[in-house]
Amino acid sequence: MKALAYYDGKIGTPEELTIPFNDRVHFFGDGCYDAAMGGNGKIFLLEDHLDRFYTSARQLDIHIPMEKEALGQLLTELLGKVDSRISFVYWQVTRGVEERNHTYSEGLPGKLWVYICPKGFADPGKPIRLNDREDTRFFHCNVKSLNLLPSVMAAQSAKRDGCGETIFHRGEIVTECAHSNVSVLKDGVLYSHPNDEFILRGIAKTHMIQACYRLGIPVLEKPFSLDFLKNADEVLVTSTTKLCLRAGELNGQSIGGKAPELLQAIQQEVIREFCDDTGCATLEG
Amino acid sequence: MKALAYYDGKIGTPEELTIPFNDRVHFFGDGCYDAAMGGNGKIFLLEDHLDRFYTSARQLDIHIPMEKEALGQLLTELLGKVDSRISFVYWQVTRGVEERNHTYSEGLPGKLWVYICPKGFADPGKPIRLNDREDTRFFHCNVKSLNLLPSVMAAQSAKRDGCGETIFHRGEIVTECAHSNVSVLKDGVLYSHPNDEFILRGIAKTHMIQACYRLGIPVLEKPFSLDFLKNADEVLVTSTTKLCLRAGELNGQSIGGKAPELLQAIQQEVIREFCDDTGCATLEG
Repeated sequence: MKALAYYDGKIGTPEELTIPFNDRVHFFGDGCYDAAMGGNGKIFLLEDHLDRFYTSARQLDIHIPMEKEALGQLLTELLGKVDSRISFVYWQVTRGVEERNHTYSEGLPGKLWVYICPKGFADPGKPIRLNDREDTRFFHCNVKSLNLLPSVMAAQSAKRDGCGETIFHRGEIVTECAHSNVSVLKDGVLYSHPNDEFILRGIAKTHMIQACYRLGIPVLEKPFSLDFLKNADEVLVTSTTKLCLRAGELNGQSIGGKAPELLQAIQQEVIREFCDDTGCATLEG
Repeated sequence: MKALAYYDGKIGTPEELTIPFNDRVHFFGDGCYDAAMGGNGKIFLLEDHLDRFYTSARQLDIHIPMEKEALGQLLTELLGKVDSRISFVYWQVTRGVEERNHTYSEGLPGKLWVYICPKGFADPGKPIRLNDREDTRFFHCNVKSLNLLPSVMAAQSAKRDGCGETIFHRGEIVTECAHSNVSVLKDGVLYSHPNDEFILRGIAKTHMIQACYRLGIPVLEKPFSLDFLKNADEVLVTSTTKLCLRAGELNGQSIGGKAPELLQAIQQEVIREFCDDTGCATLEG
């Protein structure tokens, strides 16, 4: 065949093969890959590429559904089905198929993908042209993209610790949570990280701040430290699905709980907006 | 229905809907998303979420295949098909469907996805527990994950500039390229960024360095600056599909070309390993 696609045991052309909607790669880019060149039916530096592939998967806690040797044999066998002397041999593993959620089921079996197509090398005698750009990987937290692997890994760490969220910090400065924003109340003032490239501007956070404006609560959008959070009167975690929740514990130590009336006033104002807008009388599903 | 999935005009349950193998989300996490809560058939803060969604897509040069108002109507209509008082309404756009390549066709029509399921809110009176972790997004360049959007954007910028690759730098320090490694020759020594968390350890780079060892060329794995690269004798770009190419131009200015014999000795040694291993006599496909 001209080009080959493989997914979880099925083989076809890239045009005919399809993938289940709930493969986690669709929502989080949740997978890792490797690729090699094939020549004359042989995969060049196969062991090096397989070693790196299994290392990537282990770092991401993804379970490749077969042993290294079996995968090498499968890739070589699939390469034999493509009509080309020199080929590009690409493979990846995605975390698996289950209902969308940042956290995943422990031990979820991964899904193996392969893509093979004819591809010669460029002429090594011919120079290529370059441009350059600042390496900002990954200071683009303000873009709500599907490159969510760090959030997935952090959300799973929270779940393993019996927590509902993770506080992200760059050095001492608190940025946001894995899939929520975090703000604090201290001496009657609401503090929240400014909407720069280090956080995703939460719409629930934006509306909680607007609720504070309506309630006459001063708001300071400026970075604060992890120590400041630990000593705050209240710690508020906001997201579209959580609206506005109070955090009561950080790494097993009690936090917040020192300004319950102010907190509840904010929560009630946020909930009121939801109920007024949708006509729902309560938050139950 | 209980939960709804939508992809590019098709509606089904998340279990029955499938996605074309060549959707770019599969290989690059190439898309962006937004999500809102629905109550009583109404989507809460819909305009805010739509505004952010269209902004995310514009920042990533992704083309949402309908206007904002039409998408709002579609989402509300789909919400009406799910049997629940309060629902999670999730949608995303992926860059489109075409053969796997870091660069994409300009104006490629995006694919719209929707996922809606019943979901109540957590009790706002009940505090949640937190843990914390250093916010390292995205200092994990050593993991060959599918979170490749920055590489996609950089590769496309190179293509637009008529270039074959982009030199990434953090401040003045050169790290790697969008989907290759870069090394330089200066005064008979090969310099290359060390294999830390700022680069992906290229297997082609590893083997080029081994070729240098065999040829008696000293190798220093240490960070170097963009100025050092501009003044180097030769600039070498390595990847699995490129093997080892020379760069002749950076942002339109001539670079390298001052140690052609040394360069060719390295190239020949790298090519020899490929040809010996696969039995291919040449690099043509």
